[in-house]
Formats: sequence, C-alpha cells, structure tokens
Amino acid sequence: MKSKFIVIEGLEGAGKTSVIQQIITILHSNGIHNIISTRDPGGTPLAETIRDIIKKGMNGEYITDYTELLLLYAARTQLVAQVIKPALMSGTWVISDRYDLSSQAYQGGGRGIDIRLLQNLRDAALGKFYPDLTIYLDLPPSKCRARIRARGIPLDRIEMESLSFFQRTSIRYRELVANDSRIITIDAQQSIAELNATIRNNIERWLKSQQK
Amino acid sequence: MKSKFIVIEGLEGAGKTSVIQQIITILHSNGIHNIISTRDPGGTPLAETIRDIIKKGMNGEYITDYTELLLLYAARTQLVAQVIKPALMSGTWVISDRYDLSSQAYQGGGRGIDIRLLQNLRDAALGKFYPDLTIYLDLPPSKCRARIRARGIPLDRIEMESLSFFQRTSIRYRELVANDSRIITIDAQQSIAELNATIRNNIERWLKSQQK
Repeated sequence: MKSKFIVIEGLEGAGKTSVIQQIITILHSNGIHNIISTRDPGGTPLAETIRDIIKKGMNGEYITDYTELLLLYAARTQLVAQVIKPALMSGTWVISDRYDLSSQAYQGGGRGIDIRLLQNLRDAALGKFYPDLTIYLDLPPSKCRARIRARGIPLDRIEMESLSFFQRTSIRYRELVANDSRIITIDAQQSIAELNATIRNNIERWLKSQQK
Repeated sequence: MKSKFIVIEGLEGAGKTSVIQQIITILHSNGIHNIISTRDPGGTPLAETIRDIIKKGMNGEYITDYTELLLLYAARTQLVAQVIKPALMSGTWVISDRYDLSSQAYQGGGRGIDIRLLQNLRDAALGKFYPDLTIYLDLPPSKCRARIRARGIPLDRIEMESLSFFQRTSIRYRELVANDSRIITIDAQQSIAELNATIRNNIERWLKSQQK
C-alpha cells in the first residue's frame, strides 16, 4: 500500500496524543512499521520556533490574528515541504497532531477570520495537498477545558482563550467535518476502552478500503 | 499636516540607510520632529525574530519560497498593527526601511512567485493600507553586489543570492515603480552631493504638495 498521511484533529484536551499512540500501534499490528509522527505547527527547527512564538507569545507582545494566521501557514508550508512530502515520497507513513483543518476551525471559527480568505490562503500555500485520512476527536469545549486545567501545567497562549473562543472553534470544526468523506468523527466522550475499540474499528476498516 | 508613512526601497547596497538619515534631517529642517524610523521585516520583538530567521536561516534548514513569503507577511502585519498605525494615529511620522514593495519585487521577481498570489496575499494581510510616499533607489544589481561585498561583513542568506536573483528583483522593481504616482525613483548612481540634492528637492516638493 502507498504510504499515507493521517491527521488527528480536535480541541486541546480532546485526547489527540493518546489516540496518535494508539493509531501507531494499530498500524504496527497491520504490518505498517515505517511511520513518523509530527505536529503542526512544528516538526522542523524553523516551524518549532514559530510554534513557540504562537504558543508562548513574545514577552507579552500582542500578536494580531493575521500575524498568527500567517505564522501558522509559514510553519505548515515548511513542515509539508521538509517533512511530510519527503516522508511520503520515501514510503514512510506520516501521522500529524493537527494540520490545516485546525486553522480553518481556530482561525476561522475562534478568531472569526473570513472563511474565503482562509481557503484562498490554504490553496495558495498548500495547493491540492490533503491528508488521506483525518480523525476528528469530538469533545464539548467545557470538557476539554476541564481536562487541560486538570493537567496541572501552566496554560499556553491558546489554552488561555475564553470558553466562547473554543465554542466557536468547535462549531466550525463540526461544520467542516460534516461533509468531508476523508474525515472520521469520533465521539471522545466514550470510556477509554470504548474509544480504543472505536478507533481500532475505524482505522482497520479504512485500511481495508485503501487496499482495494 | 497629518503624519505620513514614508518607505525607502531598493536592492541591498542601494544606499537606503544613509537616505533614511538624510530624509529625517530634511523633515527636521521642515519643522517635523515627531518621527520614528523602523524596518520591514522587523520593528517589533516578534517581527525582529522573524527577520533573524529570514536573514540568517535556521541552522542551515532549507526555507521554502512560500515559507519565506508567509513569514514576511506575518512580520509585516505585526509591524503595521503594533508600530506603524499606532504611530500615525498619534501624529508621529514613520519612515521604514522597506515595506510591501520589497515582497512584490523580491518574492515576485527574484523568487518567481505568481504576482496575483502576491497581490491577493497583500490585500488579505494589509487591506488598503499604503505608504504615503515611497522612494525607490535605483542602482544596477552588479553595483549593489560590489557595494555589499566591499562592506567586509559576512553576507546574509538573502545577500548570498545569485546576481540573476537580484537582476530579476531589479526588473520587477522597475516595472512596479513605473506606473505608481506615490513612488519616486531616484538614480542612486549619482555622486553623494548630487544624490543629497535630488533627495532634498524631491522630499521638499512632495512636502509642499501635501500641504495643499
């Protein structure tokens, strides 16, 4: 099977990290061992520097919504060109913690940036390069907030946003995933055992569909 | 007179820095004392960090043309929102070493990025915000190269580009400045005394036109 590009999406606290680990395990048990996991923004020294700026800010300097958006796309074009495309070309699978859908949801929904502008920027920066599969972990914003606050580590610049910011982001996520056949929505409110079973079922069904 | 936004453009080595100093002196002698000078990319801690990445690279990581372009616009939106617009609003004049025309010339001409994509990005990121006056210092690329090499300091990532890169940039600059009434082209091959006189004449004529 040709190597694939899989993305995990969802709000902070939706459980992306453990789902990524589980998917890697599932791929291994299906004979797929050449896998790299990465994250967006991030994944190269330059993109990780941009990630730091976005997550931590710069000594309290106010970052405008457009600056944030353009930084995210700068990091993403670098990640795609330097990591994702070369990996796929060499037969390596790529799993990414977030990708373009995050900007559509956070910057479009949360920040309220015009959706056509976002789509134009995506088309200009990324062309027709899309993930083969996106898993969207759906969890109500209030539950996500409770989870990230329970971690006991300081919140970053994005995590400190208001509940209404995450509500707008969540609404936009749901709109975007509703009509895209390459996105599977998973209810992240299930018990861990149920969630693991759902993920396994979905990934293995998708793998079979790709082998045809 | 309402405070103005003045930009100095040209290739590396065209003499921007000394012209900026001279324009500040001319403005002072015309009773204008509230002036800040800045540079693009740069001018805020965040934008200066981006400038460093663009100029120095990141440990030799290859920076794609689109990443560079998006970083430049991220820095620019931040500079406009945090420095230029607040200064103009408070009655302060702004002189900037480069602005958007540089991206149109370097990224459009030098890098060969599609001009419509650049214009769409500019419109999305900056809207209808333009300099009141742009001074373009015109000097042949070969002379610019000789000047930056004569400085005796190591060349940065952009300065190390090929002569043909600067030739493409120079050609695009000339196309862009040809039909824009807010841009004055100055022949930077004149002697220093002639150049100073030309700058003074142009700035003072322009100041008079603004007082009407």
